[in-house]
Amino acid sequence: MKAVQVRKAHDLVTEEIEKPVIVNDNDVLVKVKRVGICGSDMHIYHGTNPLATLPRVIGHEVTGQVEEVGASVKHLQPGDHVVVEPISYCGTCYACRKGRPNVCLSLSVFGVHEDGGMREYLVLPEKQLHAVSAELPWEETVMAEPYTIGAQAVWRGQVEDGDTVLIQGAGPIGICILKMAKLQGASVMVTDLNGERLAFAKENGADVTVNVQQEDVLARVQEWTDNEGVNVVIDAVCLPSTFKLSVDAVCPAGNVVVLGFDEKEAGISQLPITKKEVTITGSRLQTNQFPRVVELLNNGKLTHDGLVTHTFSVNEVQDAFRFVEEHPEQVRKAIITFD
Amino acid sequence: MKAVQVRKAHDLVTEEIEKPVIVNDNDVLVKVKRVGICGSDMHIYHGTNPLATLPRVIGHEVTGQVEEVGASVKHLQPGDHVVVEPISYCGTCYACRKGRPNVCLSLSVFGVHEDGGMREYLVLPEKQLHAVSAELPWEETVMAEPYTIGAQAVWRGQVEDGDTVLIQGAGPIGICILKMAKLQGASVMVTDLNGERLAFAKENGADVTVNVQQEDVLARVQEWTDNEGVNVVIDAVCLPSTFKLSVDAVCPAGNVVVLGFDEKEAGISQLPITKKEVTITGSRLQTNQFPRVVELLNNGKLTHDGLVTHTFSVNEVQDAFRFVEEHPEQVRKAIITFD
Repeated sequence: MKAVQVRKAHDLVTEEIEKPVIVNDNDVLVKVKRVGICGSDMHIYHGTNPLATLPRVIGHEVTGQVEEVGASVKHLQPGDHVVVEPISYCGTCYACRKGRPNVCLSLSVFGVHEDGGMREYLVLPEKQLHAVSAELPWEETVMAEPYTIGAQAVWRGQVEDGDTVLIQGAGPIGICILKMAKLQGASVMVTDLNGERLAFAKENGADVTVNVQQEDVLARVQEWTDNEGVNVVIDAVCLPSTFKLSVDAVCPAGNVVVLGFDEKEAGISQLPITKKEVTITGSRLQTNQFPRVVELLNNGKLTHDGLVTHTFSVNEVQDAFRFVEEHPEQVRKAIITFD
Repeated sequence: MKAVQVRKAHDLVTEEIEKPVIVNDNDVLVKVKRVGICGSDMHIYHGTNPLATLPRVIGHEVTGQVEEVGASVKHLQPGDHVVVEPISYCGTCYACRKGRPNVCLSLSVFGVHEDGGMREYLVLPEKQLHAVSAELPWEETVMAEPYTIGAQAVWRGQVEDGDTVLIQGAGPIGICILKMAKLQGASVMVTDLNGERLAFAKENGADVTVNVQQEDVLARVQEWTDNEGVNVVIDAVCLPSTFKLSVDAVCPAGNVVVLGFDEKEAGISQLPITKKEVTITGSRLQTNQFPRVVELLNNGKLTHDGLVTHTFSVNEVQDAFRFVEEHPEQVRKAIITFD
């Protein structure tokens, strides 16, 4: 069967490897249908993801159909449509005991620390697979994992009905966060430097959009919130300057969520954190967000609405990565098909 | 009656002012008994507290006895012993609506934004006074407010039974935090650069003490926690370097609490916050911590145990401030008596 592997930086190949088989009683064999290309896949491809070891079969945004189940599998059967929950964990460290397995000390992310889903077939334990409605197009279900990232950021920011929320960045993750924040009942301001992205945010429910090349974000925030500051800031741009802006724009008792892995100092001091008693929190991967996202997909409350802009077959995967790399402004989400 | 006023920076006087009277039906007239000198009083005295306008009657760690009550006062009567809750707020802004009046947009702190309690008599609305057992010595009840600061930091850090907690700084606030963390059931490591302070922390329940001049804190944390990191770090030193150390020393899914007003950049990047999905939170003043602290005082679970080291009469207040200024190593908590 075919598998897409990053052999070393900038060296992506489609290889023939053996089709996996069920080994443990709780294993499930899945015929892969669609796999999204994520920013972190691009980082692995570029050799700039410090967590991934190479060679690596990439892909963690995965949907497919169950082909065979192990003897003890309870909730899945052949033919079921599923999405992959791409984390495995120890269950015993502090983070796991606190219900936060996404930052388990022994965390293993499918497609990063271990071989992922960009291949024709995969085998995973039942608990890493979630059934979705067979009536949904694969183009919708492949978005489940990115939506969980949005759901996690909204959960970490404790976004509630009626809150004002600033989302920095209208890329695919910014849009997923926007969709989840709107479902939560928030009023949302979205910033970006690209007018088309902002127009797309508007189509997806943004109440206010701000082009950072033309306007001062902080001034717009103060005007929008009657000088109180926004209740929650979620930074999907992840630069030191946007992190700092987040802390400046948030109101007293508000929440700031960061999703970035930037190592550069962000120029944050204690003063605004203490004075406003702000909570700054990281948001990484997701914690138990799949059941809710699957429910929202099944009842049609989450639809990609144009987020998926490009589709390539597995045989065109090198073209796909080249295209994403060379035309970042055109691509919202590119997916690989395994039909 | 006598009142202690900072007229301008480094100019502290005891003045004769008029005894206040009950104006509103919910007012209570209190004969002041003891007032603690806090680091923030020293900042006002030095002219380095940006929130305080001068001239100002200082003092927000206040205990006394009710002398007279307004017509609608329900829960207090003459003779009651009380402690002052030194904040007033609007009740309508986002922070207030979220139950966080301590960072109200219109916050007024007694002894900072408005005249405080370092005087023979004060009048405050009933809701800013909490009755304490009349059997407690004034030296215990005057510590209520500093204990609420400790309680707030422990609450903001979500310290739970069995957690490992690193408290940076064994000054009076560090000790108050330590006492509250121990009551929560945590194992606590305390750091300081002063051996005597560390010995006092040990007497007050610290499980491990580390002298930062002799040992590497991060190495001790890793050793103590089997390389997991501590579950909660509370930074009562409040330097950029201790803030940064906090983020480095905390475990995945852990909490960092900052109490500082330092404006200098702390050299924090997003990487550890996202990677460990850490929560960093400010802790300022207190939110509804007085009832719990009063209960702990009443049932003898909170005692000053040597925290109050120096007592001066109101006539010696200039000596008191000079002594605190010149002998910071000798003074844990100095209090002013109004007997």
